[in-house]
Amino acid sequence: MKELMQVITSLPELRKIRSHLAEPVGLVPTMGYLHEGHLSLIRKARQECASVIVSIFVNPTQFAPNEDLRRYPRDLAHDLQLLKQERVDIVWNPSPEIMYPTGYQTWVTVEELTQTLEGKMRPTHFRGVTTVVSKLFNATQPQRAYFGQKDAQQALVVRRMTQDLNFPIEIIVCPTQREADGLAMSSRNVYLNPAERQAATVLSRALFRAQGAYEQGERNAQTLRDLMLSVLKTEPLANVQYVSCAKIEDLREWEGKIQGTALLSLAVFVGQTHLIDNVVVGGSL
Amino acid sequence: MKELMQVITSLPELRKIRSHLAEPVGLVPTMGYLHEGHLSLIRKARQECASVIVSIFVNPTQFAPNEDLRRYPRDLAHDLQLLKQERVDIVWNPSPEIMYPTGYQTWVTVEELTQTLEGKMRPTHFRGVTTVVSKLFNATQPQRAYFGQKDAQQALVVRRMTQDLNFPIEIIVCPTQREADGLAMSSRNVYLNPAERQAATVLSRALFRAQGAYEQGERNAQTLRDLMLSVLKTEPLANVQYVSCAKIEDLREWEGKIQGTALLSLAVFVGQTHLIDNVVVGGSL
Repeated sequence: MKELMQVITSLPELRKIRSHLAEPVGLVPTMGYLHEGHLSLIRKARQECASVIVSIFVNPTQFAPNEDLRRYPRDLAHDLQLLKQERVDIVWNPSPEIMYPTGYQTWVTVEELTQTLEGKMRPTHFRGVTTVVSKLFNATQPQRAYFGQKDAQQALVVRRMTQDLNFPIEIIVCPTQREADGLAMSSRNVYLNPAERQAATVLSRALFRAQGAYEQGERNAQTLRDLMLSVLKTEPLANVQYVSCAKIEDLREWEGKIQGTALLSLAVFVGQTHLIDNVVVGGSL
Repeated sequence: MKELMQVITSLPELRKIRSHLAEPVGLVPTMGYLHEGHLSLIRKARQECASVIVSIFVNPTQFAPNEDLRRYPRDLAHDLQLLKQERVDIVWNPSPEIMYPTGYQTWVTVEELTQTLEGKMRPTHFRGVTTVVSKLFNATQPQRAYFGQKDAQQALVVRRMTQDLNFPIEIIVCPTQREADGLAMSSRNVYLNPAERQAATVLSRALFRAQGAYEQGERNAQTLRDLMLSVLKTEPLANVQYVSCAKIEDLREWEGKIQGTALLSLAVFVGQTHLIDNVVVGGSL
């Protein structure tokens, strides 16, 4: 008889319970306010692993002072209900004080992959991500960890960190989950008012337009970027931060003709809400 | 029947053998050219742990370009002979190319504890130390790791990193081993010519003079620093970098009266050779 899901908030307790878990252990790190995107990662972990740990922690160090840490949506009770249905073994739900006690001063940084795209827009963001993911890895000691392709740069940065620091963990990247009209699922979609929610479909429409052109044989990187931009420009509520057609290896822009795998990605403010999305062509993450 | 010591140079092989080791596993990280200081750590690990891993890796990222990476002393054959006598289970001896392959770009930094003392003299040193120790921890997954008090700041920085990043590892600091005349054992002592070797005793003499004064009741931090300096000044071959009487918690200088544990430490060039030493008063590391 399977034991009930345990919700744990203390590190010594986590270590004790972790030591009795059947392996392989799969970790799904989240900031809560779970949607189908998270659930798809959890289901994949449940299929592949003997034990599944989900972490819920809204990580302050990956938000800049001007960002949305305070109003980031939270609903722990509902999250736990969903996680129980997915037969998760452990929910690791530490407080900010446990994760970053007084005197905290250690940071994990990935240097090059974080210089472009989201890292350029949000200079301290990925330092917060790689630091908290290192801490979650050490606290939960999984054999596998699951990330969504929606945050493609995050997945690549975490995979680089995992390899560089010799964590004995496999990073598994799962497909972006989308609403019926194409909008990539994100906890931040809740910020959108009805007009913005409608406008937000422009991100996936721009990506699919470029992806379609690629599939028709278009290989010029600038043409693909221009195509995305031309679709985004049709939407008055969209304020474009960047469109990119980047090499998967280093996330630098392709110049001229794409000759390998490319990440087509974009970041757009719709109203006050920062939205990102991507598709990969010519390969996978 | 105990198996023979295994010398391992590939990470997949290390992971495989590690998974069969009896726990607790003790790790002793070294840069080789082993002396009685290293051996005392290994003996402590052998007493306390079911399995002992010693790493030998001259870590390039903790040397600045102007430092002694190239001429750092090495004698792997002799090291292995010593380690066999200590009944070490595994020697992890990776190449620089395995530790830092092309494209390597991840760093672990401890911010505040590295601002003073050796960290001030050697601004990139501790970033190299904490990065390589993180890698060694992930590669060998010990329950305990052993460091010498001779490198006191290193031990405190590593312990801080271990706590901050939630590594499930206990950091054990072992007493400094000394030659009969008081010189702290160090692989770098081999650089000293006979006159310098004699002059190098001034480091421990300065520390013991201040320690003696502390034991006689002296609590003024500046008086203790001045005492150390007065002894060092008697030695013409000694070029003082710093003398310090620092709070153990943050390695900032005590002002006025010492009211807790203090690290008395100093760094001196004797000829071209950078030597450090310390004693702790009013407590321990």
